[in-house]
Amino acid sequence: MRQKSVFLPTMREVPADAEAVSHKWLVKGGFIRQLSAGVYSFLPLGRRVLRKVEAIVRHEMEQTGAQEVLLPAFQPADLWQQSGRYEVYGPELVRLQDRNGREFVLGPTHEEVITQLVGQEISTYRKLPVTLFQVQTKFRDERRPRFGLLRCREFVMKDAYSFDSDWEGLDRTYQAMYEAYHRIFERSGLEFRAVQADAGAIGGEGGTHEFMAIAESGEDDVVTCSSCDYAANMEKAISHEAALVEADKKRLTRDQAEDGLQAAAEQFHTPGLRTIDELVAGLEIGHDGLIKTLIYLADGKPVAVLVRGDHSINETKVLNALQAVTLTLADSDTVRTVTGAGTGFAGPIGLAIPLLVDLEVAQMKAGIAGANETDYHVRHVVPGRDFSLERTGDFRNVEVGDRCPSCEHGELRTIRGIEIGHVFKLGTKYSEKLGAQFVDSTGETKPIIMGCYGIGISRLLSAIIEQHHDENGMIWPSAVAPYDVHLIPVSTQDSLQMDVAENLYAQLQAAGIDVLLDDRDERLGVKLKDSDLIGIPIRIVVGKGVADGQVEWKLRGGSGAADRMAITDVLAAVQGSMRG
Amino acid sequence: MRQKSVFLPTMREVPADAEAVSHKWLVKGGFIRQLSAGVYSFLPLGRRVLRKVEAIVRHEMEQTGAQEVLLPAFQPADLWQQSGRYEVYGPELVRLQDRNGREFVLGPTHEEVITQLVGQEISTYRKLPVTLFQVQTKFRDERRPRFGLLRCREFVMKDAYSFDSDWEGLDRTYQAMYEAYHRIFERSGLEFRAVQADAGAIGGEGGTHEFMAIAESGEDDVVTCSSCDYAANMEKAISHEAALVEADKKRLTRDQAEDGLQAAAEQFHTPGLRTIDELVAGLEIGHDGLIKTLIYLADGKPVAVLVRGDHSINETKVLNALQAVTLTLADSDTVRTVTGAGTGFAGPIGLAIPLLVDLEVAQMKAGIAGANETDYHVRHVVPGRDFSLERTGDFRNVEVGDRCPSCEHGELRTIRGIEIGHVFKLGTKYSEKLGAQFVDSTGETKPIIMGCYGIGISRLLSAIIEQHHDENGMIWPSAVAPYDVHLIPVSTQDSLQMDVAENLYAQLQAAGIDVLLDDRDERLGVKLKDSDLIGIPIRIVVGKGVADGQVEWKLRGGSGAADRMAITDVLAAVQGSMRG
Repeated sequence: MRQKSVFLPTMREVPADAEAVSHKWLVKGGFIRQLSAGVYSFLPLGRRVLRKVEAIVRHEMEQTGAQEVLLPAFQPADLWQQSGRYEVYGPELVRLQDRNGREFVLGPTHEEVITQLVGQEISTYRKLPVTLFQVQTKFRDERRPRFGLLRCREFVMKDAYSFDSDWEGLDRTYQAMYEAYHRIFERSGLEFRAVQADAGAIGGEGGTHEFMAIAESGEDDVVTCSSCDYAANMEKAISHEAALVEADKKRLTRDQAEDGLQAAAEQFHTPGLRTIDELVAGLEIGHDGLIKTLIYLADGKPVAVLVRGDHSINETKVLNALQAVTLTLADSDTVRTVTGAGTGFAGPIGLAIPLLVDLEVAQMKAGIAGANETDYHVRHVVPGRDFSLERTGDFRNVEVGDRCPSCEHGELRTIRGIEIGHVFKLGTKYSEKLGAQFVDSTGETKPIIMGCYGIGISRLLSAIIEQHHDENGMIWPSAVAPYDVHLIPVSTQDSLQMDVAENLYAQLQAAGIDVLLDDRDERLGVKLKDSDLIGIPIRIVVGKGVADGQVEWKLRGGSGAADRMAITDVLAAVQGSMRG
Repeated sequence: MRQKSVFLPTMREVPADAEAVSHKWLVKGGFIRQLSAGVYSFLPLGRRVLRKVEAIVRHEMEQTGAQEVLLPAFQPADLWQQSGRYEVYGPELVRLQDRNGREFVLGPTHEEVITQLVGQEISTYRKLPVTLFQVQTKFRDERRPRFGLLRCREFVMKDAYSFDSDWEGLDRTYQAMYEAYHRIFERSGLEFRAVQADAGAIGGEGGTHEFMAIAESGEDDVVTCSSCDYAANMEKAISHEAALVEADKKRLTRDQAEDGLQAAAEQFHTPGLRTIDELVAGLEIGHDGLIKTLIYLADGKPVAVLVRGDHSINETKVLNALQAVTLTLADSDTVRTVTGAGTGFAGPIGLAIPLLVDLEVAQMKAGIAGANETDYHVRHVVPGRDFSLERTGDFRNVEVGDRCPSCEHGELRTIRGIEIGHVFKLGTKYSEKLGAQFVDSTGETKPIIMGCYGIGISRLLSAIIEQHHDENGMIWPSAVAPYDVHLIPVSTQDSLQMDVAENLYAQLQAAGIDVLLDDRDERLGVKLKDSDLIGIPIRIVVGKGVADGQVEWKLRGGSGAADRMAITDVLAAVQGSMRG
């Protein structure tokens, strides 16, 4: 394509609202424009990258035997009521009425539609397994859309859904998808990790992994081990200690005789010491001597969650333990009603609500806790003796330095990531609710066993740039670049340069290579600046060297100066570079 | 692909709700399924055809230099208020609120979004012309969705928008699109006509053509000439007489002296004769001796439209003459208020509302009209003498047998068509309203000159089937077929047959040919019935003939029995057939 004709509105200034690097470059480079908060138009270069990513995803999906479909965005609300998600999904679900007042939603995902569809059409194990996928536009009314394409209200997603007759089949399909995802992200030039994740609202009794692109700017914490390949997201990550208890390899027992020898719990005056840090400073003790008690509303009912003063609560683990749908920190009125005290003085002793006690609190000899009386705490609080340990479990986030649950000797650490994909074993959650059943080989009727598999296609553009950029702009990996070659004559007035450029343009295009020819009547400096900005992998400058049969060759991702290259070597060099 | 694994739920019964042939075959053949009225899921075979059509459209768009973008469906209402279409569009426009109560619409088309986008980014003639297109999902809340993919609430469309600095540029772009549309529909195997059309609600001061696939089941009347290549849709078609008046080549003058010699208008009793047919039967006169007067509300205000008794009113022409936005037949209360009579007795004499008089009424010597009194008509009504001819024009639909406005000697006739594409010269309608201006080479600021160009991608599937089917199912043209070859071993138990089938499968696929291998353990009759139903162009049956190195070859669109063919000739034959 000739650059003069391309709708490529690059900007001189950095857009003011761009918080993420990828957002900045995508807008500055003329790849996208915002229409409304979290709603973007893809301009020609952005669309080209999107299509390259789509092609990779399609190819790898089809390699697994998955078949492409296209499902509607405009979905009847009653389907969502049947699955139970109409109420649960919250304000992220876009709801609307048609002209007859019938309720609809705009699909944020397609479990309901596809489960109903497959349930209606497949009734025997002979037609299973089947995996269907689509590349389609999703709608989620995010509370706070931001970071350009990273958190949008309208976005392009690849979603796949598998249907198997047994769990072994699902395991095989899941593994095939897991491997296809690795190939997709590798081909897209991403550094990523597959991490254990929590099933969350989408639910399902099986396993689930998130694929995380490693990036400083990521919104998610990924927990990894210093020694083995353990990786989990923060919601899911557990310490070695918790893993032992979970695996029933360790029982939490307390020596009640020893507990009895501890000093009796004793209330003391702590005026104005509301926070853990204030207590640590005021009482001159360590964080790990404190018991932190927070009051939550789980599905509207108050519960107390206890973790050690140096730990933070993992709300996902609390939600899962309670099998609750919503969990919110209680407001100060509720705290006062429940504890009789102002915020900051809650403690376990005498509370008439369920106490969820973290494992490491349950193992404290004694600690300081709130007294449920404003400006008072209690010391010598002994777990088990002074409050119930009936609901003990892993309720905290892992901390840097915790021992790894997998290899048992490495230390956990955290890196930041951008979620780019997600694979779920859904099991029968949707097939049961939506009546997607089949008759197995013995004549028995069973719900179909499902999996679902998503990739944020438009989000991938941002993730790739977060990993591939420098101070001058984007650096597109070859497989997803909007063009393969940026061909830049120094002077459009120089007929020899233009002849060489036009010949190369024709020659490369004839070989199936995507070339952007900068035929603009601009100074070389402007052209090179734009070239760095839009980040096409191979840059060929056609300048005075043509008199000696030479052009200048530079890889956008390479360092140092441009190389001189014989014009006759260009095609082979481009082909070699693209293969590499 | 192996048919056993394909999600291809063919049906034995014809779906009860299918009104159109294409709807019936698409559902029966397992290509689509309805989710809600006018909302369809595309199953794997339907998706494959959709992708083939998309590829043809993309290729031809890019050949014209148009660049692909992707614009949001979720559009702020204020943009539509700015263009003035928020009010005008009516209940077909899907309206909704986001979580903050801000008004949005789901794009039924993208003039607003793209005009704003281009207006913001292009400010000089140097960046023009540019044409942008997308393949994207549209939403229109049709009053009566029907005919499967022909009238949907959610559908896939290719829409393109051109931006030029002058009208000559628009003419060139329009012509390029017009030609690209011909190539697209030809490649898709369609018999079609480009017909003159009315600009309608989307507006614009330039020309516009509709592309109509010829089909008995079409919802649109296409007017053609028996002798020349004149073609227009019914809204736009005019008679030779009207063309002369329009071109100012003929003036309508009446001989007032002669009018004065006519008998005076005379009221007479016509009890119960409300309709033209009742009058013709009751009075024993011809249709062409009657003046039909209908009361309409144009933007809420009453007007009377007069056509001869043998003609029908063309509401588009009335709308355009009045420059009104809405036109609806008046209800009986309004008719009584305006005429003082019950429905069926309206006439032009003494009416205090605007009278729009069709040309051919204006040329009647005298006629019979309603008396504006229930059960009475008036005879000897003389146009010009008895009612005003101030607003005379072409307000009727052409009739079969009217003289052609183009060649002036052929006779007009009508055929039925399905609208599959539409090209518009929009001019400055949107650029003025949305402030899309540029500075021309003389330094003058002007609105950009626009065109827009649509193709109903999903609708094309139906249009193709309406033209390509028989009593056994679909007959896909080669370029858009879900697979190129249907390879059918007679017995999956016969190892020789299966070896040959597998070898052919591998050989054809290696040559880039899409093959569906029917590996199902079904009787041959069932397989052939399914094969006819889904309509893959080339069918190769691998049966007992393999012992002699032969298979059976049949084109789905061909007649007669299958041919025997040497196995070694199959690849070349397939390639030859696909080229043909």
